Amino acid sequence: MTDLTDISSALAAQAIELPSWAFGNSGTRFKVFGSPGTPRDPFEKISDAAQVNTYTGLAPSVALHIPWDLVDSFADLRKHAEDNGVTLGTINSNTFQDDDYKLGSVTHSDPKIRQKAIDHHFACIDVMNETGSRDLKIWLADGTNYPGQDDIRARQDRLADSLAKIYARIGADQRLVLEYKFFEPAFYHTDVPDWGTSYAHTVALGDRAFVCLDTGHHAPGTNIEFIVAQLLRLGKLGSFDFNSRFYADDDLIVGAADPFQLFRIIFEVIRGGGLNNPEVAFMLDQCHNIEKKIPGQIRSVLNVQEMTARALLVDRNALAAAQEAGDVLGANGILMDAFYTDVRPALAEWRESRGLDGDPMTAYALSGYQEKIEADRVGGTQAGWGA
Amino acid sequence: MTDLTDISSALAAQAIELPSWAFGNSGTRFKVFGSPGTPRDPFEKISDAAQVNTYTGLAPSVALHIPWDLVDSFADLRKHAEDNGVTLGTINSNTFQDDDYKLGSVTHSDPKIRQKAIDHHFACIDVMNETGSRDLKIWLADGTNYPGQDDIRARQDRLADSLAKIYARIGADQRLVLEYKFFEPAFYHTDVPDWGTSYAHTVALGDRAFVCLDTGHHAPGTNIEFIVAQLLRLGKLGSFDFNSRFYADDDLIVGAADPFQLFRIIFEVIRGGGLNNPEVAFMLDQCHNIEKKIPGQIRSVLNVQEMTARALLVDRNALAAAQEAGDVLGANGILMDAFYTDVRPALAEWRESRGLDGDPMTAYALSGYQEKIEADRVGGTQAGWGA
Amino acid sequence: MTDLTDISSALAAQAIELPSWAFGNSGTRFKVFGSPGTPRDPFEKISDAAQVNTYTGLAPSVALHIPWDLVDSFADLRKHAEDNGVTLGTINSNTFQDDDYKLGSVTHSDPKIRQKAIDHHFACIDVMNETGSRDLKIWLADGTNYPGQDDIRARQDRLADSLAKIYARIGADQRLVLEYKFFEPAFYHTDVPDWGTSYAHTVALGDRAFVCLDTGHHAPGTNIEFIVAQLLRLGKLGSFDFNSRFYADDDLIVGAADPFQLFRIIFEVIRGGGLNNPEVAFMLDQCHNIEKKIPGQIRSVLNVQEMTARALLVDRNALAAAQEAGDVLGANGILMDAFYTDVRPALAEWRESRGLDGDPMTAYALSGYQEKIEADRVGGTQAGWGA
Amino acid sequence: MTDLTDISSALAAQAIELPSWAFGNSGTRFKVFGSPGTPRDPFEKISDAAQVNTYTGLAPSVALHIPWDLVDSFADLRKHAEDNGVTLGTINSNTFQDDDYKLGSVTHSDPKIRQKAIDHHFACIDVMNETGSRDLKIWLADGTNYPGQDDIRARQDRLADSLAKIYARIGADQRLVLEYKFFEPAFYHTDVPDWGTSYAHTVALGDRAFVCLDTGHHAPGTNIEFIVAQLLRLGKLGSFDFNSRFYADDDLIVGAADPFQLFRIIFEVIRGGGLNNPEVAFMLDQCHNIEKKIPGQIRSVLNVQEMTARALLVDRNALAAAQEAGDVLGANGILMDAFYTDVRPALAEWRESRGLDGDPMTAYALSGYQEKIEADRVGGTQAGWGA
Repeated sequence: MTDLTDISSALAAQAIELPSWAFGNSGTRFKVFGSPGTPRDPFEKISDAAQVNTYTGLAPSVALHIPWDLVDSFADLRKHAEDNGVTLGTINSNTFQDDDYKLGSVTHSDPKIRQKAIDHHFACIDVMNETGSRDLKIWLADGTNYPGQDDIRARQDRLADSLAKIYARIGADQRLVLEYKFFEPAFYHTDVPDWGTSYAHTVALGDRAFVCLDTGHHAPGTNIEFIVAQLLRLGKLGSFDFNSRFYADDDLIVGAADPFQLFRIIFEVIRGGGLNNPEVAFMLDQCHNIEKKIPGQIRSVLNVQEMTARALLVDRNALAAAQEAGDVLGANGILMDAFYTDVRPALAEWRESRGLDGDPMTAYALSGYQEKIEADRVGGTQAGWGA
Repeated sequence: MTDLTDISSALAAQAIELPSWAFGNSGTRFKVFGSPGTPRDPFEKISDAAQVNTYTGLAPSVALHIPWDLVDSFADLRKHAEDNGVTLGTINSNTFQDDDYKLGSVTHSDPKIRQKAIDHHFACIDVMNETGSRDLKIWLADGTNYPGQDDIRARQDRLADSLAKIYARIGADQRLVLEYKFFEPAFYHTDVPDWGTSYAHTVALGDRAFVCLDTGHHAPGTNIEFIVAQLLRLGKLGSFDFNSRFYADDDLIVGAADPFQLFRIIFEVIRGGGLNNPEVAFMLDQCHNIEKKIPGQIRSVLNVQEMTARALLVDRNALAAAQEAGDVLGANGILMDAFYTDVRPALAEWRESRGLDGDPMTAYALSGYQEKIEADRVGGTQAGWGA
Repeated sequence: MTDLTDISSALAAQAIELPSWAFGNSGTRFKVFGSPGTPRDPFEKISDAAQVNTYTGLAPSVALHIPWDLVDSFADLRKHAEDNGVTLGTINSNTFQDDDYKLGSVTHSDPKIRQKAIDHHFACIDVMNETGSRDLKIWLADGTNYPGQDDIRARQDRLADSLAKIYARIGADQRLVLEYKFFEPAFYHTDVPDWGTSYAHTVALGDRAFVCLDTGHHAPGTNIEFIVAQLLRLGKLGSFDFNSRFYADDDLIVGAADPFQLFRIIFEVIRGGGLNNPEVAFMLDQCHNIEKKIPGQIRSVLNVQEMTARALLVDRNALAAAQEAGDVLGANGILMDAFYTDVRPALAEWRESRGLDGDPMTAYALSGYQEKIEADRVGGTQAGWGA
Repeated sequence: MTDLTDISSALAAQAIELPSWAFGNSGTRFKVFGSPGTPRDPFEKISDAAQVNTYTGLAPSVALHIPWDLVDSFADLRKHAEDNGVTLGTINSNTFQDDDYKLGSVTHSDPKIRQKAIDHHFACIDVMNETGSRDLKIWLADGTNYPGQDDIRARQDRLADSLAKIYARIGADQRLVLEYKFFEPAFYHTDVPDWGTSYAHTVALGDRAFVCLDTGHHAPGTNIEFIVAQLLRLGKLGSFDFNSRFYADDDLIVGAADPFQLFRIIFEVIRGGGLNNPEVAFMLDQCHNIEKKIPGQIRSVLNVQEMTARALLVDRNALAAAQEAGDVLGANGILMDAFYTDVRPALAEWRESRGLDGDPMTAYALSGYQEKIEADRVGGTQAGWGA
């Protein structure tokens, strides 16, 4: 039996933020399928998210998306969260669903539309001040579909200007986290396509600006763990949006498509001092288009935990010695040994020793919660990306 | 001035089918933007499509999508089309928007759902018999998002069985055309991911089954013109869905992302005897998410025409001689010479000689049609992928 | 402890063919690094390959590459192999290193060069008759670098003609296995780029023609296990060339880049009846550019064995039930459960129960063989891709 | 006829540096084909390069590769160049062919090997001082093939340290230009994989450190013109290595694979002030594996010139107005109008007006130079990547 004694405190400290929108409906441009029990409002989303924490002890906070999660009283929402044992986390802005943003938001050639997008971020900061959130995460759908449609260079300059205005409004204990994405929904170019662009802008902004790395936002063949190592080295890795993908931005369950990649990513996080470091937030950003949402989230945080355990088990002294000796097969073998170790039985025991159920998936399934929400949540409009 | 004399009859014979859904709204999973003047019903879509033909003489038929284009009377729709100088073309089935199809349609493990999907195709064949359409085009969203979700092999067998039942219903003068797509909306596997799969199934079905090649449905780095050449050689290229893409299934204007690729594709069509061959239908399948739809379609058919003219101008005797001589640079140079020839002035003259406006884009813009539909089409629900 | 009782006979029957060229030097266009102890001739390659079998019991045969492995007497080589406990396996042809083949071999526009390439295959069949080999594996470097360089369609026709001539020479108990590769060393197009092309040609050839699937020869995003399932369904999967890659045709150790993909591939082999089926040969095709070659091969066959064990452990009844029930997370979970099972301790015990060392990597390292060949093999020319 | 009057001075100022190694043999890991007339030494390479300039007026300098181009007297080589009407340009270092560099050079874990690699760069700077070269271009093959093989993060730190030592030796009028490449010859990770990494290091080094953008060194789907725009904006675009590719680092003739991409790249260069700006060097980096080398280079510089002319013809006022108006199709149309303009006849005239032959390809072919070198250069060892 693998012994987790040495890594127990690292495991105990782990926290993964859940996205409120993972509990609503999502889909593709072809169809958004509904599902019974889907929340109708942010309060119900928080209730569902809290279930994930109840059964795993891994997910103590919930990220909100504005305006999808706008409520009359964020104080009430905050209390509701706390009553359910979780807190409100990162605030995500949204400048891609208003008709004005058809051709861009903070990069738009029209200064009025840019100001509208900047104002939206000011409103998000107001929400942060009410929810007690630390991070404003900015993902932009800005970009173009056709060469020549707009001036790529001018858009960078406008981006820099808009970000500076938003950054100036961020509180002393708050952070601006800029996400990059190389593709979709803009098809020809996106205005923040890669970590280099996000990095250059956050350097220009200042010490409280960081990069968000969404694991699904890279070109094929990209070595993501390298980017992790590089951003940690440069002091600019602010957060992860975890998910997995086979081809594009699939937003599948983290670890589902390539578990070994997830292992390598977390290993570099540990190597670079990013694990359980408050500077580097772990978040999920996923879409449960066809699978049940609450167990989908439970499975996801468990995947992160299991891979973290494996990565913590790497014999780093032996690894360093093999690397130093130029022993290619030996060094690779030490890494693989940890990856192939089945940590699940030990984690179940460890979980039980901490008052949790050893098998969170089954415990949730047997809890009756799913049946209850499916029965109770009748009527109203199921939450989705539009609301 | 480039002389089009020798290729005039080939140009004159060219016909490109328009998709009715290109005139409705479309978008991404993030947002579908509306636009003034969008049709509210299939009749208005046909009217708009007819404008493309009026100004280009290139688009004499319109493909329908069932159930999006269901009307009370297809006889009326057919008459409306004929009154506007176009005909009704390919019928496209849709088995991806009913809740029953969440996990598959003709490949579903539940025989009742498979039969429902088969019955939908029977209904499409009924429509074909009313519209006088020759082709039933089948694109399937079937696939899975997670490894293990379903049995890949069993789904192939069920696919073969379902297709055989549909094929048996096709009339003697009708065809079944099976489209392939390597990704989206299913993320882990699609049931018809590549030309090989579509080819193997159409061979098993029989002589009236063909492959549809959508230019946006391939993995990065795929040489599409090779597939064109191969399918023509094997006698199974039934139709094209033209569009262009930078990364995924962008459905941008054909030729917009890589004009040289479009040139190479059409060159292989000509080389293999597929141009103006009724066996090989040219169709558009595009999404005008942010640009105006009617001029978007005009631009598209003009792009196909211009590239066809360039490809027809290749000096094939000289090319063959250079190829035979192993003259790599010479052979490439002969191809490029045609590609770099600016055929637009000669095409404008040629158009005028045939009673068309030399500049269809401007002619449409000046026609007042766009202003009229934007003013007239107020109220009702704009057509989109849902209707 | 995982119990291997039920899968023991399947494991015992497994055989993986080694490529003789894996024991010679290899590299990239930038540099081929030499390494001490590298074989100078085919006899030494066989000796090294036999070591892999000695320590794993998994690798009873060795594939040859002609002309790299030409010897004066194949009877002697055959006897040398048998003396070392292995047999000679697949014969691989080579039509990419003679100056005549600069622009193609069996597809060349010059019939004399095509005949030369066909004759080379005849010579390979002669070797097969001496070595007792069943399979002639054909991988072609044929293709073009520039559009227009040659006639893609004509090359297909010439390919078909050349293959037919080669196939006609194959003995009644022999097979022609046609490999495909979508890229490299030709850059614009390859003449056998995908499984569809290889499939269409082997169908045209006849019952003794099969497809070889090299796991590194696909475009990014390709679902390889789907192709496995499809080719097994169509009865045309003849063999695997196992290796792994991160981007192109890296020829890394199988399972090194994406272990979960290897698991899924082998699961589909089992699902489709291809495991330990003589019709489906398992082979390695790898390049140990920087790591030691013999342990590199040992690691490789162990990776295949370990993944086979995991794939055999999938609870297929439970999986089928979850699939039937549309339980997406449940079905995926059953697959993942087998993948995450650490089979290594049980395999070590099982190995020992069969008279092998439980840890083949260490057993080889301690054997002194490596030190001996590094000391003995001084002088001469180290084998590589040129010889 | 397109009028080049307004862009004549921009065209006249254009200069593209040629790589000496393009005139030697090159190939793939499968085969390097020789060709008659290939230079045997750096003097002959310079002679050949000068031919390109003679016929195009576009290529006044030649980049050298150390140690491939080491000569006894660089003063003699410099004089030979000047006698042939060209100058010696960028010095390229090479730390990938010595056995010591098997696992890395400036990033190697062994400080002695790092120092050796640093010393090689010092030697390159010595050459620069003799040749009068301004730029030291560093492309590193450093990276790993297997996860765990070495410590990615530590290698970044060692890279930074080594580069700092090299940079400290650069003269006040010299520059260090750091190239990035996402793949090959290292397969799992490369130490400078992307522009972000190169950018971060050059910022840390100082004002005389710049990024080199090789157009073939990106992941599929990467928008290269965006990177051009971004690096120009950040003041760090030092040079281009032009070539083209269909999949990996094909090093084909620039513009051959995707002419429209080349157009877009050069348009962004112009937009950002990089054309004929001494800070942004235009160079070729290509491999003429199967085509003749001198005409291959002539074709290449003409491609760059022709695309430059097209990009200069963009009506930027009209473009800006359409962009400002949000006219997607209009703005795209203005860009495409310039791309589709056939500038070749006007360029031929313009060339003749400047005392050059209108058709450099034919002029070279008729010159007899090729026949002469093929007859004269008998014996000796043809130059290639090894020498």
